[in-house]
Amino acid sequence: MHLWKTVAIVGVGLIGGSIGLALRQRKLAQRVVGIGRRQETLDQARKLKAIHHGTTELADGVRDADLIIVCTPVNAIVDHVVACAAYSSGALVTDAGSTKSHIVQSLDEQLPRGVRFVGSHPLAGSEKTGPQHARADLFEGRVVVVTPTRRTARSDAQAIGQFWEALGARVVSMTPAAHDAAVAATSHTPHVVAAALAAATHTKDLPLVAGGWLDTTRIAGGDEELWRQILLDNRENTLAALERFQASLSDFRAALEAANGAKLKQLLGKGRKRREEASA
Amino acid sequence: MHLWKTVAIVGVGLIGGSIGLALRQRKLAQRVVGIGRRQETLDQARKLKAIHHGTTELADGVRDADLIIVCTPVNAIVDHVVACAAYSSGALVTDAGSTKSHIVQSLDEQLPRGVRFVGSHPLAGSEKTGPQHARADLFEGRVVVVTPTRRTARSDAQAIGQFWEALGARVVSMTPAAHDAAVAATSHTPHVVAAALAAATHTKDLPLVAGGWLDTTRIAGGDEELWRQILLDNRENTLAALERFQASLSDFRAALEAANGAKLKQLLGKGRKRREEASA
Repeated sequence: MHLWKTVAIVGVGLIGGSIGLALRQRKLAQRVVGIGRRQETLDQARKLKAIHHGTTELADGVRDADLIIVCTPVNAIVDHVVACAAYSSGALVTDAGSTKSHIVQSLDEQLPRGVRFVGSHPLAGSEKTGPQHARADLFEGRVVVVTPTRRTARSDAQAIGQFWEALGARVVSMTPAAHDAAVAATSHTPHVVAAALAAATHTKDLPLVAGGWLDTTRIAGGDEELWRQILLDNRENTLAALERFQASLSDFRAALEAANGAKLKQLLGKGRKRREEASA
Repeated sequence: MHLWKTVAIVGVGLIGGSIGLALRQRKLAQRVVGIGRRQETLDQARKLKAIHHGTTELADGVRDADLIIVCTPVNAIVDHVVACAAYSSGALVTDAGSTKSHIVQSLDEQLPRGVRFVGSHPLAGSEKTGPQHARADLFEGRVVVVTPTRRTARSDAQAIGQFWEALGARVVSMTPAAHDAAVAATSHTPHVVAAALAAATHTKDLPLVAGGWLDTTRIAGGDEELWRQILLDNRENTLAALERFQASLSDFRAALEAANGAKLKQLLGKGRKRREEASA
């Protein structure tokens, strides 16, 4: 039995495309409709079997949906959810944005009573974009944060949790504010650090980069417009997390300046242990 | 036909073990002898077919070698090469140290005339250590920097280049000083940045780490004693490269503080382009 009749995905890129692929391969929805700006991308998603049908008309795409997932860039999510709510007839709506406080608060204020929205953030991004990089297993074993508020019906939060779990994800429930503070440290600051490291490397030194540099800078390959939006949206938390990183780096630098091997080893050991704790 | 009769590997860990595996699988040496401090590690390397024979006695191990590769931690290399030279009869000697200036200069000063040493650095390290992580293909397609000096016979530098090429590597020849300045930016600073980022992440936030944080901090899992030695040995270059990184990070931070989206996007774009240049 299908969990959903018609699922509408607004924005069929890496995340939206992967949701569609997973829904279809796991036979979780009778019909998956993709909504996008460019017919070409929708045709590509249809050929990849991420969606059954694609349309550039939001109203058409969401009309019959019982579940809508908005997978557009952070700055577009609020408007898209508001439009989805206007055109759909009682669908449950979620998003996949990397930030939550502003999005969820705006929607709590703007959405008419009775519209059912629950914020989500699948921690499954990549430096790659577009449906051609979509994978049916993208969410398997990954964490998805769901951010209900006082306005959210418990049954809606549960349904959205079940949706992500059906795609193989592990669901964590948090407030939007707690989510944004945590991902500032675990995602947004690493992005800034990776980009700053790549940008600081002279072109003449690039022939000597190896696995270490390539790993450390991998996420710097991400789309700068998407990340501009994320970083500005979560600006204060990211600045606070950046400050903690800069203080940590200053400790390493001071130990190296003083040629204090014992202190340097202690700091390196702290980093190694924290790394091992995370991957355990 | 074998390229070498007897190859002695001093220090049979990730790098030394991988050299042994590659030599044996590619049938480049008649006999591979491993020299180490612990018989247990040597027995393990022998079972993995990385070496034919293992000994804890340096004099025994290197006596018949025509090629010796010293794969011990940076601080031990000079003493090991000097000892190898004393016990061997005319072998060509190289190392696999991550730094080159101090090692090569010390050996140029200390080695008796007629001892043939050429410095090497295979850019194929990993956060993993020990022969159990050794791989016969570790050097395939990787860069190995060879650092001859005025004291080096051209034929010796060529022979060491051929050795690494026979393992599948791409050989680049540089001065020890140019090598150390470049790897300060491409390897040693990324290590400090990764460790500082891991150390700055609160334990409470670890449940929300995903691919980005894990990639960016991967090398922080490396052995802190090996890295203490590398960073202190290449201290001045690393401090200079760290300063460039900190300046780059300050640009990002200033743009974020000013909520200057255009500048932020420009900086992110610079990082993305440099990243793409490197992996192209």
